[in-house]
Amino acid sequence: MTAQEIRKTILEAVAANGGHLASSLGVVELTMALVDVFDPWKDRIVWDVGHQAYAWKILTGRAGDFSTLRRLGGISGFPNPSESAADAAVAGHAGVALSVAEGLASARDLKHTGEHVVAVIGDASFSNGTTFEALNNCASSCSKVIVILNDNEMSISKPTGALSRLLGRLIASSRYNRFKSATKKACRSFRMGFLIAAIRSVKRFFKRMFIGLDYFEQFGLRYIGPVDGHDLAALKVALEVAKAEDRSVILHVVTRKGCGFVPAETNPTRWHGTGPFNLAAWTTVNAPQEGERALAGNDWSQVFGETIVDFAARDDRIVALTAAMKDGTGLDVFAERFPDRFYDVGISEGHLVAFAAGLAGGGMRPVVAVYSTFLQRAIDQVMHDVCIASLPVVFCIDRAGVVGADGMTHQGVFDLAMLRSLPNLTICQPVDEEDFRKLFAEAVKRQGPTAIRYPRGRALERLPAPVAQPAAPKFAIWCTGDWYAKAAAAAARLGGIAVHARYLKPFDRELLARQRAAGMAIVSLENGCVQGGLGEAIGADLRLGWPDEFIPHGSQAELERCYGLDLESVVAAIAASDIIGKGKAHG
Amino acid sequence: MTAQEIRKTILEAVAANGGHLASSLGVVELTMALVDVFDPWKDRIVWDVGHQAYAWKILTGRAGDFSTLRRLGGISGFPNPSESAADAAVAGHAGVALSVAEGLASARDLKHTGEHVVAVIGDASFSNGTTFEALNNCASSCSKVIVILNDNEMSISKPTGALSRLLGRLIASSRYNRFKSATKKACRSFRMGFLIAAIRSVKRFFKRMFIGLDYFEQFGLRYIGPVDGHDLAALKVALEVAKAEDRSVILHVVTRKGCGFVPAETNPTRWHGTGPFNLAAWTTVNAPQEGERALAGNDWSQVFGETIVDFAARDDRIVALTAAMKDGTGLDVFAERFPDRFYDVGISEGHLVAFAAGLAGGGMRPVVAVYSTFLQRAIDQVMHDVCIASLPVVFCIDRAGVVGADGMTHQGVFDLAMLRSLPNLTICQPVDEEDFRKLFAEAVKRQGPTAIRYPRGRALERLPAPVAQPAAPKFAIWCTGDWYAKAAAAAARLGGIAVHARYLKPFDRELLARQRAAGMAIVSLENGCVQGGLGEAIGADLRLGWPDEFIPHGSQAELERCYGLDLESVVAAIAASDIIGKGKAHG
Repeated sequence: MTAQEIRKTILEAVAANGGHLASSLGVVELTMALVDVFDPWKDRIVWDVGHQAYAWKILTGRAGDFSTLRRLGGISGFPNPSESAADAAVAGHAGVALSVAEGLASARDLKHTGEHVVAVIGDASFSNGTTFEALNNCASSCSKVIVILNDNEMSISKPTGALSRLLGRLIASSRYNRFKSATKKACRSFRMGFLIAAIRSVKRFFKRMFIGLDYFEQFGLRYIGPVDGHDLAALKVALEVAKAEDRSVILHVVTRKGCGFVPAETNPTRWHGTGPFNLAAWTTVNAPQEGERALAGNDWSQVFGETIVDFAARDDRIVALTAAMKDGTGLDVFAERFPDRFYDVGISEGHLVAFAAGLAGGGMRPVVAVYSTFLQRAIDQVMHDVCIASLPVVFCIDRAGVVGADGMTHQGVFDLAMLRSLPNLTICQPVDEEDFRKLFAEAVKRQGPTAIRYPRGRALERLPAPVAQPAAPKFAIWCTGDWYAKAAAAAARLGGIAVHARYLKPFDRELLARQRAAGMAIVSLENGCVQGGLGEAIGADLRLGWPDEFIPHGSQAELERCYGLDLESVVAAIAASDIIGKGKAHG
Repeated sequence: MTAQEIRKTILEAVAANGGHLASSLGVVELTMALVDVFDPWKDRIVWDVGHQAYAWKILTGRAGDFSTLRRLGGISGFPNPSESAADAAVAGHAGVALSVAEGLASARDLKHTGEHVVAVIGDASFSNGTTFEALNNCASSCSKVIVILNDNEMSISKPTGALSRLLGRLIASSRYNRFKSATKKACRSFRMGFLIAAIRSVKRFFKRMFIGLDYFEQFGLRYIGPVDGHDLAALKVALEVAKAEDRSVILHVVTRKGCGFVPAETNPTRWHGTGPFNLAAWTTVNAPQEGERALAGNDWSQVFGETIVDFAARDDRIVALTAAMKDGTGLDVFAERFPDRFYDVGISEGHLVAFAAGLAGGGMRPVVAVYSTFLQRAIDQVMHDVCIASLPVVFCIDRAGVVGADGMTHQGVFDLAMLRSLPNLTICQPVDEEDFRKLFAEAVKRQGPTAIRYPRGRALERLPAPVAQPAAPKFAIWCTGDWYAKAAAAAARLGGIAVHARYLKPFDRELLARQRAAGMAIVSLENGCVQGGLGEAIGADLRLGWPDEFIPHGSQAELERCYGLDLESVVAAIAASDIIGKGKAHG
């Protein structure tokens, strides 16, 4: 396939299903070169954050199915060895590819199997602590890895910190342009077949051009680059050089996010991840605003974003922190209004939480906006730096619950189970917009840490009018706030009541005891995993939530149906169980 | 107090109670200089891993109580703001001090309070990912922090990676010696009082000596050093320079672990952490071997260490990994016998687990030896890199349960609650040495990840002979393996039975159902937190374990008594509850 055909396939699938567009369009030529120079089925190519890997999927046997991208039962948005033997590792969270690659390379050398191991890592991941730990261990390892630094000068929002400055300086230097023309000349003078045989002389030739970068050399990596990431011939040459090198190398490739699709080139942040959009309309010159709407819809994030701006205007102790998720978490307005009180630390969740602990220790009221799945990176800091000293940090945990099309690496189902064991931490979940504001107000006042979790998707503007409750309800459905309407509807049909478990920890023990005393059975219904979740905490007789398996991609509604968590299934599950009328069954 | 008096106080307390000796002895002069140059009650000194902070405690009002170090109700082995206002932050886990310091500095600048913020960080912590993330964010921050790199060329075991090489080269260079004599001259020519007034000229003077280190300069930190960490006058001069500097600085201080106590200077690894020992005997010239015994006693670690060597001799897929805990986890013999299959990655738990995932993906059987409390740093990698692809990584979780004198930052009570929600992960705990070997054998064979948890302390060589079981037991105590003897004794007294919950996940549902059907009440007794633990998983009627608070320091036996988890308390709790005879009570 040509680069143009690959881009067309990506654009059509993402326009239809939504997905990560800008990064994927940026690495089309790089992926073509990788597939050409390496053997995808024998060599191991590890993608750091697999949203770069659409072209990889297309070129390794999944072109025909690619229109099913992110759809239930279709191609996943991230690499996964269970989908294809070409995928070397699961890759949905940033910063781990180099560690995994070093493991694969060490295993190779212990087994003398000789395959090449390549890690493709975006520049934003280089500010991640795990990538650094892996880099630091490169120096003491004899196992060769090829590291490709995919430098698109753009993490999910803006790049942060020393490393991005360093890379920027390097590209800005005249060397890059000199290198580009030198590469072209080299490609003209060698045919590729001849080149491979003559690799040693080519290496000598290129070494004069490739200028070492101390930062990487000190980690024992030979630095090669920068290379134009959209010049296929240059990429192949550079990859051959890296392949022939006898120690670990870092190949610095400069790519353009969104390359080949003008709207994404112009505004890569807006097109990092997108909902479905009208491709035909966007490829005309004066594109409509229709696509923008598709991106919106993370309405809980907006509720958070508006709330924190309101509170911050009245309380100058409030500061906001995010780890490369300013727009996604709804902090864009805050960042504009209160730039001195806004911190985007890059993809550095561990630092994020310990930094918040310091801010709280210094008398501020830090609000950490983070996706549920990424907070997993900082569980220890939540425990060690925030909870032991009971510091007033507010965690606003977005995307808590199943998120849908991003699939198993991104489902936010574990936060409650992981955080619930931590002393001093209050955990709550709002039922509607007004409730969010109340919980946020309580959190900011509390002399201790609070986690407010809320799902991906639309917040209820207000609670539906209460239905008439039965005089002697047979059971109570305790639910997370986001599923209250469903719980209320199910309860109404079967003669029970619904309870919004506003505080998930500590939960309302008195209410539970009263309901138990009245002979009511207890059902739990939570947008989180059942193992270790709300249902276990309250000892529910019937526990409805996400089961003990990784939940794949699909729409939220589809997944709820598949896993028996839509309204009809919930009603059926309660009706089919033996709990109604028995008061209580199994403990 | 003089340095000698401080060292004597430290040595006497540690000889009596055990503790972290070598690091604490190494920073006596540095601490004296800090207390002299800064105001401990206004300025904020953040210690990275507080086992360096004994002298700090002695010099900030805790000298009189210092003999109670690590004893129940006494001085904690780690800094904690709840113990003293001089302690800026909780500090038991490595790598977070710089993040916390940046938070404190940002808060200071938002509030214009003007205090100094200092982070004292051991060289081993510089290879930690969170420290790197914080360094990377220094570059984009305007808030000044003073970073003291306490370079004792020695993490808990050996230093690893590129950074330690870099620091080693720097110290080895002649600059260090030149600097030392220059400092002495400077101190002779200036009185300290005059020096402070004349700081600008001093700065110019020293700048000629202090040679910038690119690594730190690129993160926006001015590099100063290296300074002899046992030369009080030189340290004070250097700290004054750092204090007067208008941007963030890193002061490289070279210290000797164990300084002032010959046995610890000679063998700092053995004296990193130690049990009680006979100080008088050790300070004679030919010290006895008695002290060595005090260090031993982590017998579960030995059982693990012997087991993995046995298995590795027969299965060359087995590789062992640790994060700077080779000796503590019992991997020293393995490392000697199989150096090619042993990896110590330094204090880099995130990398540790992702690296293990790569090794497993490459066909090896990686065994990750890690303390329960430190595995918290890598919960996300366990989920994302190991569990999703269900890779055969074996986690040997040492120090699972309350560890005793190290206190609240180190109690290993959260691992089960945090890991239990992860799909594909098998979690188990042995009851005796033989059982450990069986579980290990099963783990190495399993086509998926396994966590084997075991506590700090002595393993049963074999299970005690079974007592005659009652014909119709009234209740069953499900317990973690380490507390089986206690559960069996309590059950025997009250007409119940004890169940060793060998597999904590998935637990034996059939057995539980049979016991429920027979009308037995279920009690859980676990060396882990009750919130999210075994008792909740099995829906026990009475749940005995560590409560929802951070458990302080004290001996394991004392803490068990305090928290109602010794045999007598367990018997009393079961007898006092309403569960016996009722079959089942509250869900």
